[in-house]
Amino acid sequence: MSMLQENDPYMKDMKQVETAALFRQIIRIMEELRQGVKKPYKEVIDVASGDPQKTGMKPLSFVRQILAACLYPQLINDNKLPVDVRQRAQRLLGECPGGSVGSYSATRGMPDIVHRVSEYISRRDGGAWSNPENIYISPGSQWSLANIFQILVNTEASTRTGILTPVPGYNTSILSIKELGAVPVPYYLDEEQGWELHMEELHRALASAKGVCNPVALYIINPGNPSGQVQSRQSIQEVIQFASEKRLFILADEVVLSKDYYLSKHKRQSTQIQQVNTWTYVCNFLKVYQDTVYGEKSEFVSYKRVLAEMGPPFSDTVELASFHSASKGMLGECGLRCGYVELVNLDPAVMKYIYTQFSKDSCAPVLGQIALDVMANPPQPGDPSYPFYIEETQHIRTTLVHNVNRALTAFNSLPGLTCQPGEGGVFVFPRLDLPPRAIQKAKEAGLGPDTFYCVNLLEDAGVFARPGAEYGQKEGTHHIRICIMTPPDIMEELLRRVTSFHTQLMKDFS
Amino acid sequence: MSMLQENDPYMKDMKQVETAALFRQIIRIMEELRQGVKKPYKEVIDVASGDPQKTGMKPLSFVRQILAACLYPQLINDNKLPVDVRQRAQRLLGECPGGSVGSYSATRGMPDIVHRVSEYISRRDGGAWSNPENIYISPGSQWSLANIFQILVNTEASTRTGILTPVPGYNTSILSIKELGAVPVPYYLDEEQGWELHMEELHRALASAKGVCNPVALYIINPGNPSGQVQSRQSIQEVIQFASEKRLFILADEVVLSKDYYLSKHKRQSTQIQQVNTWTYVCNFLKVYQDTVYGEKSEFVSYKRVLAEMGPPFSDTVELASFHSASKGMLGECGLRCGYVELVNLDPAVMKYIYTQFSKDSCAPVLGQIALDVMANPPQPGDPSYPFYIEETQHIRTTLVHNVNRALTAFNSLPGLTCQPGEGGVFVFPRLDLPPRAIQKAKEAGLGPDTFYCVNLLEDAGVFARPGAEYGQKEGTHHIRICIMTPPDIMEELLRRVTSFHTQLMKDFS
Repeated sequence: MSMLQENDPYMKDMKQVETAALFRQIIRIMEELRQGVKKPYKEVIDVASGDPQKTGMKPLSFVRQILAACLYPQLINDNKLPVDVRQRAQRLLGECPGGSVGSYSATRGMPDIVHRVSEYISRRDGGAWSNPENIYISPGSQWSLANIFQILVNTEASTRTGILTPVPGYNTSILSIKELGAVPVPYYLDEEQGWELHMEELHRALASAKGVCNPVALYIINPGNPSGQVQSRQSIQEVIQFASEKRLFILADEVVLSKDYYLSKHKRQSTQIQQVNTWTYVCNFLKVYQDTVYGEKSEFVSYKRVLAEMGPPFSDTVELASFHSASKGMLGECGLRCGYVELVNLDPAVMKYIYTQFSKDSCAPVLGQIALDVMANPPQPGDPSYPFYIEETQHIRTTLVHNVNRALTAFNSLPGLTCQPGEGGVFVFPRLDLPPRAIQKAKEAGLGPDTFYCVNLLEDAGVFARPGAEYGQKEGTHHIRICIMTPPDIMEELLRRVTSFHTQLMKDFS
Repeated sequence: MSMLQENDPYMKDMKQVETAALFRQIIRIMEELRQGVKKPYKEVIDVASGDPQKTGMKPLSFVRQILAACLYPQLINDNKLPVDVRQRAQRLLGECPGGSVGSYSATRGMPDIVHRVSEYISRRDGGAWSNPENIYISPGSQWSLANIFQILVNTEASTRTGILTPVPGYNTSILSIKELGAVPVPYYLDEEQGWELHMEELHRALASAKGVCNPVALYIINPGNPSGQVQSRQSIQEVIQFASEKRLFILADEVVLSKDYYLSKHKRQSTQIQQVNTWTYVCNFLKVYQDTVYGEKSEFVSYKRVLAEMGPPFSDTVELASFHSASKGMLGECGLRCGYVELVNLDPAVMKYIYTQFSKDSCAPVLGQIALDVMANPPQPGDPSYPFYIEETQHIRTTLVHNVNRALTAFNSLPGLTCQPGEGGVFVFPRLDLPPRAIQKAKEAGLGPDTFYCVNLLEDAGVFARPGAEYGQKEGTHHIRICIMTPPDIMEELLRRVTSFHTQLMKDFS
């Protein structure tokens, strides 16, 4: 047991209380700014969470118009809204119990929406079969994930349950695992190789659990959060074979993708924005742009699709839960709180238990469910809302491509900062190599170097980023996580502030 | 241990799987109706949950207008919406991170809304101090309750944790307690006395736990769900004294109340609707109608208020969590998924743990938070929306008073059905006294008499009610729970169907 505990990469240099302290710090600073306390900045740039609208990204009008019309049905008769919006709202209201979004829906989501999400998954996955009975809409993907963990973890067994977890990985999930008394068994992504997942590392991690815990599941985040790596089809195949051989349940956190929005690896020369030393983000609009030049090779593929295409025995035995959310990607509707999970190959007895587990809360917010429905069924060519929808989604895509390239260039040009390009998601996770005197100073303050960096970056430069320690990092390395889904002018201001802060810090401690 | 387990009133005649079976039954019937299968009814009347909009009650326009304008801010410039709606929406958006309801809020709610909820509590409780730091907005009161249970239950202790729970009581809460491995210690409400809570029964229940578990908390539902009883100020005082003496944490589930909406006991002659053999529901609009004739005596009081007014040592030692929700009462916005809990006299170390526990989920749905804000701050005299708001809330009040009286008269006029009037909430919980042959028939079907009744009521008459076994009931008694917050014509149709079904059943089995 001790080997794994001593090397717990998620706790190194970071106590949970420090995360809380960071949040208290930002609340204090916001309050001081509101009271007119003089600081070197007028507003904090909050890139601590994957929340595009927080920094001013605009929501999709089509989504918002439908939600507004569902809430206040008088708008359906108002010809200021496009006719397809009004028709859609009318149809959706007809599907709500009592014709109102104010009623509880069925526990696992409105049946019509569940069906359409299932059809969307099939389309996304090249026609792979999706059973609506296996789809549960919930108040968010983390909610579903925590509940599935709860089912997987056997608290009665004498040997604790283990779950293989990526380093770096999403902190909320790791916390859920620990709270259940289970053991996160870390596997490390290879930073130098763009945070790639190596099979030998999975084997090593599994072996490390021997005598410590009983590993039952493999938690995957794809695209990586915070790392941003995107797994190739081949890599996914290998992981599925591994899971099959070792009898591991696969939990595939695929939330950073959205509907018709896929980020994939592509050489820089294939995009308009030329950038040295970086891969560039390329968004491949399925349905809308599915026949573009990016082609099959660079297309993002889901675990479900690869599993289905591998055929038996894998496709009918490997247990998989795939998570998705309305919070990320094109929609970015974090405030609505809604996501879904698709469960594949689960024992019917377990499915019954899942039904009970998911019934504890009455249902996901109905407006979030409607947003998921719109995500699964955007306007089609010929619909009145189609041109503006395309304009808005194109704008988001362009912004993301622009921002990631700007961020990589800026960070990689600073001494003591290196940033792997990543290939998807909405985060970058640059690595800090701070001077020994800065590390010493952090130690004196009782903080890890990355937490020390974030505390000062927030205080001095008004940029709220998260320390790598929250997500786990290799012994002796330190990182910060930054959301890059912001308006371009905010990104420029952020880079200006980080550059200035970082330069000064390197000077002060050199 | 065995005494308590054998007499577990929540499991009598009802396995959890039967609840699931009932839900599957209604899904099947709805599907059959959709496919045109011929039945004695065209639509199911679903009064199984406290969901007014499901049966066609209209939401409050003021709430919906503000939410729609927040979602689609172009509406703020549209003069079709009242000016106070547009101003309010503008202000609320200004308080959202990034000016959008699509952003995550602070974990325990938008700070401005938390402050206003705190002020609302103070006003409601006659000026009793409320600290915003003690208020947590969550995705619903059941969510909060389950999380507080989790904190109270010590899973490591050799003696299991006990929580005193009412019989009948809300099934979801009881399920949460059991899932944590804790023991619900039942105390029985006195049906013959209008489901009153007697102190000697609390003492008996506590004594029954001796040698079985370690009781740490007392769970109260007021107004009762499903029983509908409302505790008097004196009863609350006695309960607080009891909790203080026995060192029990009070969990006061007060969700069935809403903002300015209090149901209280009142003799029938004080209302317009005369009804024999019933108490009548009287709604006392605080703020709006606070100087009405109903006066102090019949006013609903919260646990928080009574605790504050009792003074030391009670007011600064008794630990209390009081829950409220946007789902019930005047708002009835179940689909939005939002509620709050106020925590009083908790140890700061526990409060820190609660912060962590409540941070597992990022935040409550932002639109639900806004609905709570409107609940706490309805339109005021002079506001453009005020007259229509009063008209709508009056209509809801009149409907509720009308429905409960109609239901009581109808049920109490049927042989084998008796219904206590109750004094608040949105449910009635009539008692079934079925003929022995019906009970035998139920037994043959492997069902409890009340489940048997509900299954057949749904199948034959298209009325979806819940069996009392789900909520717990005294040995040998059987009940059904019905939501009475429906449009009057639906209530009439429901009573027609129940009367006809029940009469036939009594005839068939007599």
